[in-house]
Amino acid sequence: MTVHSTWKEKVQLKKDQLNSKIKDEWKLNSTTITRLKNDKKNLIKNIDDLCSSSENQITHSTIMALRQALEAKELSCHEITAAFCHRAALIHQVVNCLSEIMFSEALRLADYYDSNRPAILPPLYGIPISLKDQCNVEGVDTSLGYLCRTFKPKTKNEESLIVSFLRDLGAIIFVKTTVPSSMMATDTQSNTFGYTYNSINLSFSSGGSSGGEGSLIGAHGSLLGLGTDIGGSIRIPSSYQGLFGLKPTFGRVPYLRVDNSFEGRETIPSVIGPLARDLSDLRYFMSCVINICQPWVQDVKCIPYHFDSSTSKLHDNYVVGIWYGDGVIDPPPSDIRALKTCEDLVNKTKGMKAVKWEPSSELSRELFDLANEADVADSGNEIKNEFEISGEPLLDILKPMVLENGRPPYTVNEWWDLTKRVYNAQQLMRDYYLSFPESERPDVIISPTTLMPFRPGDMLKTTLRYILLFNVLNFPSLSIPVGSVDCQIDGLMDTTSALNPEDKMIKTYWNDLIQSGEIDGFPIGLQVVSPTFNDNEVCKFASWLFSKI
Amino acid sequence: MTVHSTWKEKVQLKKDQLNSKIKDEWKLNSTTITRLKNDKKNLIKNIDDLCSSSENQITHSTIMALRQALEAKELSCHEITAAFCHRAALIHQVVNCLSEIMFSEALRLADYYDSNRPAILPPLYGIPISLKDQCNVEGVDTSLGYLCRTFKPKTKNEESLIVSFLRDLGAIIFVKTTVPSSMMATDTQSNTFGYTYNSINLSFSSGGSSGGEGSLIGAHGSLLGLGTDIGGSIRIPSSYQGLFGLKPTFGRVPYLRVDNSFEGRETIPSVIGPLARDLSDLRYFMSCVINICQPWVQDVKCIPYHFDSSTSKLHDNYVVGIWYGDGVIDPPPSDIRALKTCEDLVNKTKGMKAVKWEPSSELSRELFDLANEADVADSGNEIKNEFEISGEPLLDILKPMVLENGRPPYTVNEWWDLTKRVYNAQQLMRDYYLSFPESERPDVIISPTTLMPFRPGDMLKTTLRYILLFNVLNFPSLSIPVGSVDCQIDGLMDTTSALNPEDKMIKTYWNDLIQSGEIDGFPIGLQVVSPTFNDNEVCKFASWLFSKI
Repeated sequence: MTVHSTWKEKVQLKKDQLNSKIKDEWKLNSTTITRLKNDKKNLIKNIDDLCSSSENQITHSTIMALRQALEAKELSCHEITAAFCHRAALIHQVVNCLSEIMFSEALRLADYYDSNRPAILPPLYGIPISLKDQCNVEGVDTSLGYLCRTFKPKTKNEESLIVSFLRDLGAIIFVKTTVPSSMMATDTQSNTFGYTYNSINLSFSSGGSSGGEGSLIGAHGSLLGLGTDIGGSIRIPSSYQGLFGLKPTFGRVPYLRVDNSFEGRETIPSVIGPLARDLSDLRYFMSCVINICQPWVQDVKCIPYHFDSSTSKLHDNYVVGIWYGDGVIDPPPSDIRALKTCEDLVNKTKGMKAVKWEPSSELSRELFDLANEADVADSGNEIKNEFEISGEPLLDILKPMVLENGRPPYTVNEWWDLTKRVYNAQQLMRDYYLSFPESERPDVIISPTTLMPFRPGDMLKTTLRYILLFNVLNFPSLSIPVGSVDCQIDGLMDTTSALNPEDKMIKTYWNDLIQSGEIDGFPIGLQVVSPTFNDNEVCKFASWLFSKI
Repeated sequence: MTVHSTWKEKVQLKKDQLNSKIKDEWKLNSTTITRLKNDKKNLIKNIDDLCSSSENQITHSTIMALRQALEAKELSCHEITAAFCHRAALIHQVVNCLSEIMFSEALRLADYYDSNRPAILPPLYGIPISLKDQCNVEGVDTSLGYLCRTFKPKTKNEESLIVSFLRDLGAIIFVKTTVPSSMMATDTQSNTFGYTYNSINLSFSSGGSSGGEGSLIGAHGSLLGLGTDIGGSIRIPSSYQGLFGLKPTFGRVPYLRVDNSFEGRETIPSVIGPLARDLSDLRYFMSCVINICQPWVQDVKCIPYHFDSSTSKLHDNYVVGIWYGDGVIDPPPSDIRALKTCEDLVNKTKGMKAVKWEPSSELSRELFDLANEADVADSGNEIKNEFEISGEPLLDILKPMVLENGRPPYTVNEWWDLTKRVYNAQQLMRDYYLSFPESERPDVIISPTTLMPFRPGDMLKTTLRYILLFNVLNFPSLSIPVGSVDCQIDGLMDTTSALNPEDKMIKTYWNDLIQSGEIDGFPIGLQVVSPTFNDNEVCKFASWLFSKI
C-alpha cells in the first residue's frame, strides 16, 4: 500500500463515519443533490421544500421566539432539535458544511430535557447550537481539517470551556462545522472534508475559516454558532452569507481548550465569537456566556466585564465614522452605496452625526503587512508538519502560508520586533482616533469588509485589506448585512484608474462578477467596529441601525 | 587610544556630568563619605544630621501630609523640592543611587508653581517624584545602565506617557535612579554608574532592578518613585529597604514609551508600579494615575478600571491564604515568624479566617523554570550586543543571562511553545485556586518574597523562587515590611535537613548572615498577592493589616 493510497483510504473512512451519522430517511438521492447544486441561488427555498412546514417554522425562527414557545410548551426540545438536525443534514449534502455530526446525542439530550423539564428554564434550554470544528466536544474529533488529527476523539477533560458553558446553559450541541485545514485561509477546504460552498449562492465560496458555520447558518441549518477569527474568519463567512458575526475584543469569550493553529502565539491572537442570523439572538447569547458564566473565573485570559444586551438606545451626540476606503483598494460600488445608506440614516437622525474616518494609507498598509508577516513567521513549519504526518498533499490555498524559499522561522528576537511594530501601529491608530476633537470622535466606525465574494479557486483574487487590520488592532467588529448587490445599480468599476496592481486585480474581478451576473442579489457585508473593549457599543449601535434600516 | 580606555573615558564623562548636577554646598568631603559608608546601619540618622530640622520634617513626612501643608500654605513647593533634592544628593554620595539629576529643572518648576499657584491644587501639586532610569524624560538620557545609551538625551516626543501624566498631576520630577545594566539582574550595578548599596544596611545590596529607587526612598530621599518588575524588580528593593512596592496586574499603569529590555516580549511582561514609604501615599498615587489620567485612553495596552483607594474595609467572611513554603526552598525563621504574626492577627479577627495556601511543588518549579527560560530565550543576544557597542566588559551579574554554549536564540515556534506552557501553568494555578470550597477561597495570599538580603557579589546565593512565579501568573503583588530580623529570636537553620542543594545553599547563606550579625534588624519583607486584576483587594487588605500591626 503506497502512502498515497493510505491517506485517501483514511479520508474515505472519515467520510464514511460522518455519513453514517445521517439517518437514511434524511439522505438525498443523487438526482436531488445535483438539482439543488445547480440551482445556485435558491438553496433556502429548495431545502424548505424538503422539510415540513412545522420544521420550517422552527428553523426560520429566532432563539428568542423558540424560547418563548418552549416556555409556553408550544414546542418541545425534541421538535426543535429534530428540525435543525434534519435541515442541517440536508444542507450538508449540498454545501458540505459539517465535520462532525452529533444528531443522536443531541436528540437524546433533547428527550432528556423534555422529560426532566425544570421549573425555570436555563437561558439556552433546548436551543441547538453549532460549533466550528476547533471546539472540543467529548467523543468526537477536533481535526482542524488535518487528516492526521482524525479518529482521535476528545475526552471529557479535553472539552472546551465554552462547550461546558453551553451545556450548563442548557444548549444542545448537534454539529461541528468545516474549516480549511489549519484555519489559515479564507476558503473552506480540506482533503478530508472537501469544499464548503456558499449557501446563499452556490457559485461562491462560503468564505472562511468559519465557512461551515457560515454556510450552515446561512441556509437556516442553525440559528447561532461559534466561530473564531484571527484574520476575518468570523466576519468573512458572516458577510458572505448575510449574517451577523461578532469578533469580540480578545478575552471576552473563553478560548480555553479550543484547539488552534499556532497555539501560544499571543500577538494578533485568534478570538472566538458567535455568528447568527439575528442580532438580538447574538446579543442574548453573548450576555448568557459572559454575564452568567463569567468566563474570567475559569479562564485566566478572560477579562471581567459585563455584556450589555438590554438596550439599543444610543447616548446623545453620537458620532459615527464612515470609512469609504483606505486609499489602497477602492471598495466596490455596492459597498459605497451601503455605506452611504448608513451615513444618510445617521445624518438625518437628531443627536447623531457622521464623520469621515480616514486613517493614513501608510498605516493601513503597515497593519496589513504585520498580519501577513505574523502568519508566516514560522515559515509554515507547523502546517507543513501536520500535512506530512498523514501524507496528504498540501492544499493550494495554503501554499502562500508555507514558504518554499528556505527562509528559516523567525528567531525570538525577530518575533519580538514584530510584536513591537504591532504595538506601535496600534498606538498610531489610537493617535489618529484621539486627533478628532472630542465632539467628533467616533463612537463606532462603519467599514467595508470582504468587498465581494469569490468563486472556488479565486481566493487570492480578493483582499483582506479591510479585515486584517482589525485583528491587529484588537478592535471588536460586528459583521452586518446591509442590502444586496444589484448589477444594474452597482455596475462596473473603472480599471484604468486603478490605484495599483492589486487594486486593478480587485476591480477586474468585480467587473467579472458583475458581467457574469453571478453576484446579483449577493449580500453586501459591512462591519461596525470600535476601539478595543467597546464590544457593547458595537452591538448597541448595530441594533439601533437595524431598527431603522 | 585603545577600546579599553575609550569606554572608561566615556564612563568618566558620564560620571562627571552627573556629579556636575550637584551643587558644591551639597557635596560631602571624602572623610564624611567614608564615615557614613562605614556606619552601615545608620544612614538615615547620619543623613538627618546633615540636614536642617525643617528639611527632615519634610523628608520624613508623607505625600498626604505635605499636600495638606501645601494647601494650608505652611510649606511652599520650593521648600519641599529643595529638601528632597538636598537629601537625595547626600544619599547618592553614599549609596550611589542616582543615574540622572534634574535638581535645577525641579526647583525651577517648583518656583513656577509657587508664583502661579492655582485656586485648586492638582492632585500631586508640588510633590517630588523619583523615576527608575527606564522612564523617558525630555533632556536626559535613558541609559538602562548601558554605556552605549548615554549622551543621547530624550526628546519631548519620546517622553514616557507616565511622565506626562505626572506633569499633568503637578508632580515634580527631580531624579532618575540606577538600574543594573539591562535590568535583568537583582543587584544594581553597571560599569557606568557603579554599585548601588542598600540604604538600610550598607553591607548589603539595594536589590534590583529598581535598586536606585529602593535605596533612595529607603533613606527618605524620595517619598514615592516608579519602578518596574519583570522578575521582582519592584518587590525586591521594596523588601530590602522596608518599603511598600506594588507590582500591579499588567495594563494598570501605562508602560508606553518607557524604555526596556526585550521590548516586544509580551509573555511574562514587565509591569510598572510605585515604591513608597507609606501605603496611603501609594494608594493615593495609584488612584491619581488611574482614575484621573485614565491611561487606557492613550495606551492601548491599558485596561479600563477604577483604582479603589477609599477604604480598608474588608468584606465579610474574608479568607487569607498563608504560604509557608513551596517545598523547594524553606523560608527562613524570620519569614515564618512574620507569616505567623499575620496568620494570628487574621484568625483572631471576627469575620476573617486564615487558610494554608499550598500549591504543588511541581507547579512552583514549573513557574520558576518558565520565567528563567523566558529570560534567556534570546540566548543573551540583546544584552551582549549592547555591551559590545561601547566595548564595556560584560558584568558578572549578567553572565547567567548571556549563554556561552552556542545555543541559538529560540525560534518563534519554541517561543510559542513556552508561551503555551505559561498559559497552562497559569491555568493549573487557577485550578488549584478554584479547588478551595468557596467559603475558604483566599481573597488574598501572604507569601514570602526575598527571604534574606545579600552582600555585593552574592546575588546568586539567594533565590527568586517566591518572586518569579507571580510574574508568570500576572498576579498583583504588594511588597510589605513586617518587622525585622532578630538574630536571637530567628536563629540558625538546619542545613543537614536541606531539601536539595539549592535549599542547602540558601540555608547556609542565612546562617552566615545570622552568625555575622549583619542581618540583625534588617527588614522582613512579605508580599500580599491575589489573582490577576485583584489589585484593589491586595491594597485594601494591606491597609487593613497595617492598621492592626
